[in-house]
Amino acid sequence: MLKYAMIGGGPGAFVGQVHRRALALNGQAKLVAGCFSRDLEKTKRLGLELGLDEDRLYATPEELTRLEAGDVDFAVVVTSNEAHYPNVKTCLENSIHVMCDKPFTHTSHQAVELVEMARDKGLHLGISYTYAGYPMIRQAREMIERGDIGTIRFINCEYPQGWLAEAVETTGHPQAEWRADPERSGGILSLGDVGSHIEHLVPHVTGLVVTRLAARLDTLVEGRELDDNGTILTEYNTGARGMYWYSQAATGTVNGLKLRIFGDKGGLEWFQEEPDHLYYMPLNESTQRIVRGSPAMLPGAQRFSHTPPGHPEGWLLAFANLYKSFCATIEYGEKPDFPDGEDGLRGIRFIEACVESSRRETLWQEIN
Amino acid sequence: MLKYAMIGGGPGAFVGQVHRRALALNGQAKLVAGCFSRDLEKTKRLGLELGLDEDRLYATPEELTRLEAGDVDFAVVVTSNEAHYPNVKTCLENSIHVMCDKPFTHTSHQAVELVEMARDKGLHLGISYTYAGYPMIRQAREMIERGDIGTIRFINCEYPQGWLAEAVETTGHPQAEWRADPERSGGILSLGDVGSHIEHLVPHVTGLVVTRLAARLDTLVEGRELDDNGTILTEYNTGARGMYWYSQAATGTVNGLKLRIFGDKGGLEWFQEEPDHLYYMPLNESTQRIVRGSPAMLPGAQRFSHTPPGHPEGWLLAFANLYKSFCATIEYGEKPDFPDGEDGLRGIRFIEACVESSRRETLWQEIN
Amino acid sequence: MLKYAMIGGGPGAFVGQVHRRALALNGQAKLVAGCFSRDLEKTKRLGLELGLDEDRLYATPEELTRLEAGDVDFAVVVTSNEAHYPNVKTCLENSIHVMCDKPFTHTSHQAVELVEMARDKGLHLGISYTYAGYPMIRQAREMIERGDIGTIRFINCEYPQGWLAEAVETTGHPQAEWRADPERSGGILSLGDVGSHIEHLVPHVTGLVVTRLAARLDTLVEGRELDDNGTILTEYNTGARGMYWYSQAATGTVNGLKLRIFGDKGGLEWFQEEPDHLYYMPLNESTQRIVRGSPAMLPGAQRFSHTPPGHPEGWLLAFANLYKSFCATIEYGEKPDFPDGEDGLRGIRFIEACVESSRRETLWQEIN
Amino acid sequence: MLKYAMIGGGPGAFVGQVHRRALALNGQAKLVAGCFSRDLEKTKRLGLELGLDEDRLYATPEELTRLEAGDVDFAVVVTSNEAHYPNVKTCLENSIHVMCDKPFTHTSHQAVELVEMARDKGLHLGISYTYAGYPMIRQAREMIERGDIGTIRFINCEYPQGWLAEAVETTGHPQAEWRADPERSGGILSLGDVGSHIEHLVPHVTGLVVTRLAARLDTLVEGRELDDNGTILTEYNTGARGMYWYSQAATGTVNGLKLRIFGDKGGLEWFQEEPDHLYYMPLNESTQRIVRGSPAMLPGAQRFSHTPPGHPEGWLLAFANLYKSFCATIEYGEKPDFPDGEDGLRGIRFIEACVESSRRETLWQEIN
Repeated sequence: MLKYAMIGGGPGAFVGQVHRRALALNGQAKLVAGCFSRDLEKTKRLGLELGLDEDRLYATPEELTRLEAGDVDFAVVVTSNEAHYPNVKTCLENSIHVMCDKPFTHTSHQAVELVEMARDKGLHLGISYTYAGYPMIRQAREMIERGDIGTIRFINCEYPQGWLAEAVETTGHPQAEWRADPERSGGILSLGDVGSHIEHLVPHVTGLVVTRLAARLDTLVEGRELDDNGTILTEYNTGARGMYWYSQAATGTVNGLKLRIFGDKGGLEWFQEEPDHLYYMPLNESTQRIVRGSPAMLPGAQRFSHTPPGHPEGWLLAFANLYKSFCATIEYGEKPDFPDGEDGLRGIRFIEACVESSRRETLWQEIN
Repeated sequence: MLKYAMIGGGPGAFVGQVHRRALALNGQAKLVAGCFSRDLEKTKRLGLELGLDEDRLYATPEELTRLEAGDVDFAVVVTSNEAHYPNVKTCLENSIHVMCDKPFTHTSHQAVELVEMARDKGLHLGISYTYAGYPMIRQAREMIERGDIGTIRFINCEYPQGWLAEAVETTGHPQAEWRADPERSGGILSLGDVGSHIEHLVPHVTGLVVTRLAARLDTLVEGRELDDNGTILTEYNTGARGMYWYSQAATGTVNGLKLRIFGDKGGLEWFQEEPDHLYYMPLNESTQRIVRGSPAMLPGAQRFSHTPPGHPEGWLLAFANLYKSFCATIEYGEKPDFPDGEDGLRGIRFIEACVESSRRETLWQEIN
Repeated sequence: MLKYAMIGGGPGAFVGQVHRRALALNGQAKLVAGCFSRDLEKTKRLGLELGLDEDRLYATPEELTRLEAGDVDFAVVVTSNEAHYPNVKTCLENSIHVMCDKPFTHTSHQAVELVEMARDKGLHLGISYTYAGYPMIRQAREMIERGDIGTIRFINCEYPQGWLAEAVETTGHPQAEWRADPERSGGILSLGDVGSHIEHLVPHVTGLVVTRLAARLDTLVEGRELDDNGTILTEYNTGARGMYWYSQAATGTVNGLKLRIFGDKGGLEWFQEEPDHLYYMPLNESTQRIVRGSPAMLPGAQRFSHTPPGHPEGWLLAFANLYKSFCATIEYGEKPDFPDGEDGLRGIRFIEACVESSRRETLWQEIN
Repeated sequence: MLKYAMIGGGPGAFVGQVHRRALALNGQAKLVAGCFSRDLEKTKRLGLELGLDEDRLYATPEELTRLEAGDVDFAVVVTSNEAHYPNVKTCLENSIHVMCDKPFTHTSHQAVELVEMARDKGLHLGISYTYAGYPMIRQAREMIERGDIGTIRFINCEYPQGWLAEAVETTGHPQAEWRADPERSGGILSLGDVGSHIEHLVPHVTGLVVTRLAARLDTLVEGRELDDNGTILTEYNTGARGMYWYSQAATGTVNGLKLRIFGDKGGLEWFQEEPDHLYYMPLNESTQRIVRGSPAMLPGAQRFSHTPPGHPEGWLLAFANLYKSFCATIEYGEKPDFPDGEDGLRGIRFIEACVESSRRETLWQEIN
């Protein structure tokens, strides 16, 4: 069993607990060290609660990475966004594999530096784009590879949420607070939080590369400084076209990531709130509902399916699937099949291009 | 009971039959004269089948409108698009009220001329934007007027179809043939056929006016000359933002007109393939499914509901509802509540702005 | 065009208007005579409104049938249930074909008499089981005939409504009033109103015959005398098993007729509130959603489809389809494909067996 | 952190792994000992893989319970059904709390004996009725307690599966094999496997007690000896009525547990394949979709919700919730809120009554 350390994810931090539970579920790795908070007392309190030894609880990430180098197999970086870059860097410097929360860094320069450092040192650098872990997303990817929908012509991906439909950042909502703060979030709000998932999911599933985009970032809620909504027209390396919509101010929506892909031989549709189903629309035939775990599953997707069909799996198991591959790669040298630093870098470049396009109003913006 | 004449809608023409059935269903008007086809024999064959007198079947629209002026209460123009303008004009010249199929004309100049002519002569000019006739669309409109969702911030309206995912215009599909022919369709394909419904529905329901847009018209199917897909970013007179997507090459979709409206107090969602339901998402409360005919209906919407809740009504009854208001206006002077020439003109201006925006690639295009 | 008379369906009677609209929609028959109410003044008022000649509006059904014999092609009987028997009888005695509302009669003796009379006189006797008119019901029937789901093993059919969840019959609801009155309704409430639709639909689609049943009729709402809910276990001539549930006291449900049929090679599911779809579940394959009007339609079903796929048809068009076949049979001698007196008789026998089973509490009851 | 032992759940046994993962996810208890299989070699292989000490892997449950008494806080019994009774008994005899898989025992005599033994020794005895762990099931329970739907009148609960629509027990399907074997399964097949979940869920949510039932157990698949389908009419202590349907031969269904409850003030509907939603149908108002984690959640239900709304939780987290309460009761003396031996006993009595009712064909059968 692998051993890992966690940086960030202190008391009350939602995502840190998710990473720990996903790893516990898999039974592949054991938490042995932590620097959960800037406040050592908080780190100690949580660490002891989690059953860690007191001498493996650290005041700073630097201390942790220096002292744990060699004793832990990987580190998990789940701090707020602005601290991703320094923390991932100190891990890599100390030759520790890293899984980092998304979005990766504030700038593409930072991302390039980290990706190159990982490559040079032969380290694995994962980025936790959760939705890539869903079995039906992998099923979609394999069906496309196999040619089930032919040549892709158009992609519509949307991700509306409604929890920022009010200015909750001004009324003490902790997550909203740092996300809506230009300094801490890197100058973007919802584009980084939810738009980034769209950006990752589309090439992950289709293999297509965005070459040009036109973005409009909107601030729908009065008094807010950053974007809480955005629409992006995309063009891909194959000539295919696309359109993205993300929002956190879409009143009444919940967590509505939806991916629709249209090819010349068929279409695919997947909705995150109903993740165990993939709708397959072959040209001129009836739409099929492919159920996770059913005989229609392709092997690479079925591998990430855990319970029988009709026993819903959900989001936490998608999360666990990212680690399933990450840990197997580290432990057994298995071929990596998890979002990595390159994905993270591409994501940051996409964000930068959107911000630029929206600012200039000429709209069309090339991406290299 | 009113008497009407029909221009166009000959043997095999789908939409002509729909208009006739909608009017029969209502029992408000009786067909008494027709020029269904350019071929008088065809007109006669159909007319006799429909029980018309032979001497009220005409070789040309001009002849019909001249001779029937005074004997018919209104005319229905359901020819292919390029003939809308001359046919509506001859009706108006002969002081006959008209219901015309959408999109209205090829150019906004034509539309302006017809709207002014109708206004000057005190004639009613309706445009058959079917979807405006659905009771739940009227329910949405009344709920917005009443303030149920507060100030509108963002609108997402999409209309994907899949029946042009293959180049059926080259294999003898009659409707596809004329629609894909630049000459006969006015230089646009799907923007006129389905995009126009989006254009109409949004202001109809919300009262908002598009002031600026950025459009990209796509041709997704190889060998086709005109647009079969398009994405449009919109801005409204209130500062609200929006996004439209239309397609007839979205493989596997059927007739997926969906309207989502997000305000600061709630959201609304309606899907044409499930037209008897309206989803209402009040801020921070559970989503409600409002059923046509149920106690939640507002009076102006319930008026257009015909069968008890749970007894689905569908598209033909929506069509009939357009005529319900059109005929009541003509017969009893009731306040008009049907899409009219102004709507048709606005639609043509929208189409022209989209074409211009897409051509120039600077994208943003003002609409006056 | 055929000519018909209507008995019942006076001012305010919902179902009479439905029959008239369905016939108008089809354009196959024209209303020429009527006895809409026991009150001649009401008959006259409605008749004139509908454009009938005053001398073809009658004080009694007897008078109508006697005087119109030879002048009308068929009569429509849409009175309240207790008057079905005498009215159908007088039509048949005067050699007029009849379409009668369901349930047919109060007793099976009455039903036998009418069926025999119609047979002896070579008259057509239709019973308006609306749901049999839906295209996807016909699609299900054809798929089963073709063997798509193999040998049928189990059927689950339910029909919950909620409009009698309160004792609205005591607060002036006109329809509820006569239905809840033991005298006028024939001693049953919901079994006749909605249970009867289940009874008809199952053999209509599957060809199976109920040979034995065990029924429990429930009165869920306090103060009510008759059944407002019921559950019935069934056995069929092939050995297949089934289970029916009907209710009008299922609070919050709308008009939830659902039919599920399970065979050894596949299953079928249809839900009346979403009537344009039929779900086909082939054994060990993904479920398919068959859309009305799509290429998957079989010819006998497609014949009853009117609008393109995704343009919802709904309940009134299902109604019209019953007449489509009824009128074509009368006018052109087409092979009858509408619910007839035999169906009506079988329905009354089923009701009698359910009442008897529920009364005796030994439950199992043979049906001959 | 608690320590537990597992009896059963050897290599390849699905449910053993589920219990282990659910416990790992919670982080409340650590597996320290096991007798996973009748074959000690298999137990050792799996135990070492799971990181257990070799000297805590046992050849027999008796050995395990004797030697671990005092060292483990509880045992998990996940053998096939016929071994539940002796294994739970040996745990209780050695004063070890137990979580046992469902259905509890083969006979009610055995169940009574175990329940009394647990009570006498002050031990906790849980039964893993998974579906009771879903947050929205707890939400339904609290809403009913609060009176949201008033007095319950009718309950419809169904649980169709399709995986036994073919005789897979004859073609080497391991689970099907023992379940279809009369000896090992206790003379029932699907009634024990899925019917038992219905039986538990209804009183768990509503508080109602079945006092009388009429059951028909069916064998739909040729060559099978035991029931693979069944329908049960129920009556409750309050006079409410109900109807259950379970099946494992419903071709094309997946894991369709659905619970519908109708009161005089509203209704509730929950579907296991979409577990994060609860549909609430207040009388004469629009249906509401209550989303797990949303503001509409009641405190006792929200306590068992782990991720934000729209981040689906699924079946494994429901499972974990059973343990969440079970462990908290053992560790902190928290008020028990998990299915227990009394529930298990009531379940066995229900099964016995169904078998008796179906055998005698007079149907109605009292339950004490």
